[in-house]
Amino acid sequence: MYKETNKRSVAKGVTWRVVATMTTMIIVYLFFGRLDLAIATGLLESILKIGLYWAHERAWYKVRWGMTRIEPFNIWFTGLPLSGKTTIADAVYKELEKFNIPIERIDSKDIRELLPNIGFKREERNTHIARIGHLIKTLQNNSISTVSSFVSPYTESRQQVSEMVKNNILVYVKANIETCKERDKRGKYLKALTGEYQNFTGISDVYDEPKEADIVVDTDNVNVDEAVEKIMMHIKKQYLN
Amino acid sequence: MYKETNKRSVAKGVTWRVVATMTTMIIVYLFFGRLDLAIATGLLESILKIGLYWAHERAWYKVRWGMTRIEPFNIWFTGLPLSGKTTIADAVYKELEKFNIPIERIDSKDIRELLPNIGFKREERNTHIARIGHLIKTLQNNSISTVSSFVSPYTESRQQVSEMVKNNILVYVKANIETCKERDKRGKYLKALTGEYQNFTGISDVYDEPKEADIVVDTDNVNVDEAVEKIMMHIKKQYLN
Repeated sequence: MYKETNKRSVAKGVTWRVVATMTTMIIVYLFFGRLDLAIATGLLESILKIGLYWAHERAWYKVRWGMTRIEPFNIWFTGLPLSGKTTIADAVYKELEKFNIPIERIDSKDIRELLPNIGFKREERNTHIARIGHLIKTLQNNSISTVSSFVSPYTESRQQVSEMVKNNILVYVKANIETCKERDKRGKYLKALTGEYQNFTGISDVYDEPKEADIVVDTDNVNVDEAVEKIMMHIKKQYLN
Repeated sequence: MYKETNKRSVAKGVTWRVVATMTTMIIVYLFFGRLDLAIATGLLESILKIGLYWAHERAWYKVRWGMTRIEPFNIWFTGLPLSGKTTIADAVYKELEKFNIPIERIDSKDIRELLPNIGFKREERNTHIARIGHLIKTLQNNSISTVSSFVSPYTESRQQVSEMVKNNILVYVKANIETCKERDKRGKYLKALTGEYQNFTGISDVYDEPKEADIVVDTDNVNVDEAVEKIMMHIKKQYLN
């Protein structure tokens, strides 16, 4: 969140003075036909009003009236491991940073030190996701929008998040499991297949396909840029006007 | 976080116009001695400049220049159970809400659904406090200040929080343990004494008195209002100018 500095109010005073004094001088010249007095009026006006404008700016800066809370939203990316969620979410986050809104990225690595990873059983995963929902809610109370990416394989926990947070946009990052395996440079799928990883989504645990998704990105058919464009179009239309 | 509405820009245009046009009319009258033309100048100027001012406001609203990030702070209340931390912290939070800053209250009850309570052993308590530190850090990244109140009995965990977060203000809410017992309507101290509660600070677990505290509030000698005033004076001087 930002505050207006004094120098900003001064700069606004100067740019406004140029516009305003030119206008006054033209009016006076048209009415009286005296260029010398029109200029004298302009000069005197400038000196007085630069100070008055600044004082007016600072007074209004203290007044909250006419300020409305920024409405936060949450973009929730779900998909199989290695489906491309993180890559697309990172790119969308980068895009959103260009807009004048407070925004936070929430991914497993971001919350590692905040929320303990309690396990991969259905109930444990659901508890974990619910806690992330609470984190988003806390941020939203302060007008902060979020870009979240988690495998979040179960319908019930995605449902819970969408009920807890405001303006939830569910993005399903769809990828064929064979594509995911190909992308997997760190051998996670292999470890799941050999049983080293338990309850691994797509191998030894279910992934409920989200029929309730607001946006579906099929990474077998679109690239990252196209995916970002599709998502940004949706957000711009609904939340960035 | 707030945004400026269009009607706010219009209202600013109107109040400014009153100040500015009066000034112009006085100048023109002094220069030309013609009241009728001074009024005509003022009228024409008003009509033109209300629109120009509005456009100028909206243009500046899109420009970030001269806006600086609000610097967040964290007030951390430590003290024995029932020392009065929560009461004083709530009152300070209420006071801070009157200022134009984003502020969040963090207490056991606020984070119950976000962070699991893992236990009361020294290491578990320290892990819990470190997680709260991470939550504060996440909020601070978004310019949100915090009012936190936790028993936080160990020097090392209070130290850790003060290293993790920006502008940490440690407030020690001091109370005689007998006073705390008297305030204890729900019988927590009794349960600790009978052994029903384990690792209870002040009875079956240590409380490291914070020699490093920025502010000490001795609740045996000052009331809530006095405590709030003392803390607010400190914050106002350092962070609310």
